[in-house]
Amino acid sequence: VNPRLSASDIPAGFTFAATHCGIKRARLDLGILVSDTPATTAAVFTTNQIVAAPVVASREHLRKSRGQMRGVIVNSGNANCCTKQDGYPASIATASKLAAELGGTDPSQVIVCSTGVIGAPLRVEKILAAVPHIVLNRSAEPGAFEEFARAIMTTDTRPKWATARCRVGGKQVRLVGCANGSGMIEPNMATMLAFIATDAAISPKLLDRALRACVNRTFNSITVDGDTSTNDTVAVLANGHSGAREIRGSSGADYKAFTAALESVCTSLALAIIDDGEGAQRTIEIEIRGAASEKSARQIAKTIANSPLVKTAFAGADPNWGRILAAAGRSGVKFDPRRVNISIAGMTVCRRGCEHPFDERAVHQKMLAKHVPVRVDLRAGSASARVWTCDFTVEYVHINSSYRT
Amino acid sequence: VNPRLSASDIPAGFTFAATHCGIKRARLDLGILVSDTPATTAAVFTTNQIVAAPVVASREHLRKSRGQMRGVIVNSGNANCCTKQDGYPASIATASKLAAELGGTDPSQVIVCSTGVIGAPLRVEKILAAVPHIVLNRSAEPGAFEEFARAIMTTDTRPKWATARCRVGGKQVRLVGCANGSGMIEPNMATMLAFIATDAAISPKLLDRALRACVNRTFNSITVDGDTSTNDTVAVLANGHSGAREIRGSSGADYKAFTAALESVCTSLALAIIDDGEGAQRTIEIEIRGAASEKSARQIAKTIANSPLVKTAFAGADPNWGRILAAAGRSGVKFDPRRVNISIAGMTVCRRGCEHPFDERAVHQKMLAKHVPVRVDLRAGSASARVWTCDFTVEYVHINSSYRT
Repeated sequence: VNPRLSASDIPAGFTFAATHCGIKRARLDLGILVSDTPATTAAVFTTNQIVAAPVVASREHLRKSRGQMRGVIVNSGNANCCTKQDGYPASIATASKLAAELGGTDPSQVIVCSTGVIGAPLRVEKILAAVPHIVLNRSAEPGAFEEFARAIMTTDTRPKWATARCRVGGKQVRLVGCANGSGMIEPNMATMLAFIATDAAISPKLLDRALRACVNRTFNSITVDGDTSTNDTVAVLANGHSGAREIRGSSGADYKAFTAALESVCTSLALAIIDDGEGAQRTIEIEIRGAASEKSARQIAKTIANSPLVKTAFAGADPNWGRILAAAGRSGVKFDPRRVNISIAGMTVCRRGCEHPFDERAVHQKMLAKHVPVRVDLRAGSASARVWTCDFTVEYVHINSSYRT
Repeated sequence: VNPRLSASDIPAGFTFAATHCGIKRARLDLGILVSDTPATTAAVFTTNQIVAAPVVASREHLRKSRGQMRGVIVNSGNANCCTKQDGYPASIATASKLAAELGGTDPSQVIVCSTGVIGAPLRVEKILAAVPHIVLNRSAEPGAFEEFARAIMTTDTRPKWATARCRVGGKQVRLVGCANGSGMIEPNMATMLAFIATDAAISPKLLDRALRACVNRTFNSITVDGDTSTNDTVAVLANGHSGAREIRGSSGADYKAFTAALESVCTSLALAIIDDGEGAQRTIEIEIRGAASEKSARQIAKTIANSPLVKTAFAGADPNWGRILAAAGRSGVKFDPRRVNISIAGMTVCRRGCEHPFDERAVHQKMLAKHVPVRVDLRAGSASARVWTCDFTVEYVHINSSYRT
């Protein structure tokens, strides 16, 4: 699924490293992503009001350093959330340790992230002890980036990364990103971390704008189970080492090219998360068309995407359009059911709110694919929205009911 | 689970019957509940905007007859929903047939209900052919009521009924009710039918008030999967045959006694539905305390009750309080996480938003019970709300992903 990385995919001026520091049993659980020089950084965080200590610390650091960051340090296996008065100092100590090992960088130039179990105390001394070692061993090799991508995994079955390139003023700009997450995923920042490094030169304000636009169309448009988490973070670091001119203004060709490349990375990572959704057999793409507004289209799409009855029907490759229509009907958005057309895997199954005769075996066969598009046309307006989810399988329940996850 | 019914449990002046008319294979699929004389009737219907034809017909009939109904006719196995132009005439024909067989009753004095598959054409001729037969065979025997309760089952594993009595002016008033439903259940009328017969005498306005109050605290406070259906109906028929004086005014002892009895029947039926929730092993009672308002308490309770991660944790009897707190945190209600206390099965697991040391094995053992209470205290106000749900098991997925349900 992941593209094979070569040295030329890695943006200039970034290094990476990962190790097993002892929070997890015998797996990579600590990683760093470092820019040689302070990089313009934009980030978005969870919308859940239960916020983990590292999110609090990272928000402060971004503000203090005015979005000029040297790097990111991430541990997996423990979310450092709901950990009393010890949580926040642990996050600050982690950032400070990386800053010190990078040779006197200001601690506020480090983003610190955690992912894993909520409520268990973080053994921060294990992290601190490992930092000198990984700082020494960091490298710009593709293999080092891949190890970093592995170190941020939680219940993921595989690491997830993506690359993109664009041209700015005749020069090549590169982007590489990785993400974790496969449960507790829902629009508005889920249990999910994503980090994108690029050697573009761009102002903090413009980078923030580009990131927010991309995140809404990608990470905020996926859902595994409707549960949002306490640690979600997407950060992009742009260090300008490509030598390309600075991207200025949001109307020019440079910004368009860069945003398209950023969105391409975000889309690949978001779809990789859904593809690796806990227990998922297939990805369902829900497109609402003909809505009065994009907001109402998105609300309907999300209600369908989070309906256990719809998601279990897809697990059985059952073209049960009645469940899709009933979920739309309880979404809170008003529409005329007698105008609604629904297609599954390209075949019309419902016309004007009633069953449209279709070959059940043929649709069932098409629904066995890895990717199944669903289109609901309200025929009431011209707005649309697209949300991706996965089917709801026995495996999802197995993963999340095993005592204790 | 159901109480054993005796002849003295059945309110005076009601008869019941059921048969297999051929919509389902070899199981009861048609039932009637008839009052000897027009009964004051109140009903609430689904809030889903996809509304089945029988709901449209029954709403009209209640309006036309000013809430004076002779009876109810119900088929299972087919929801008569999204069935093009044929659905509504089929419901009207069904009501008219029962009215005619009852000897020239006005068709608008009949409530008609359907439950089952959405979108498949209803073979109404099978229903019409069976009506004369069940009208002839109706009876006031407890066994006839039990058969009626069986005839309205869909994916239920067992019929559900409840009884209550109260005294009005020294005379005994009786109530008997039954319900179906085990999936697509969520507050605000789920895939659920419930019918309650009573020989109390009460005005339509007062009966409506009593029913709405009871439904909010009972049927609207349960959720299996957050999916609401297109056919939900709760109706209560009060024919006055007890000989007790008419209940007048909502402040007197008569109204209080009657409402308590009605709520008792509704509570028993609502909990029986959760107990029979698709694939459910146990009932979870979620109580939010110390909230600023009942509305916000209910919103938090419902978000927790519909969280797949919380529900799967309970399937594994896993005291994963972090998922409960994270679900509360995304509910849209503002609160201070650092004040929150959580107990599971009576044992404190979270204090002031952090883990409170507890004996994991002991809590796990207690969570293996059939009924597990969860209490979340926000310590911010004095309002509270209670919602019941069930755990999310592998069986739920099996039931709902089998091709075709």
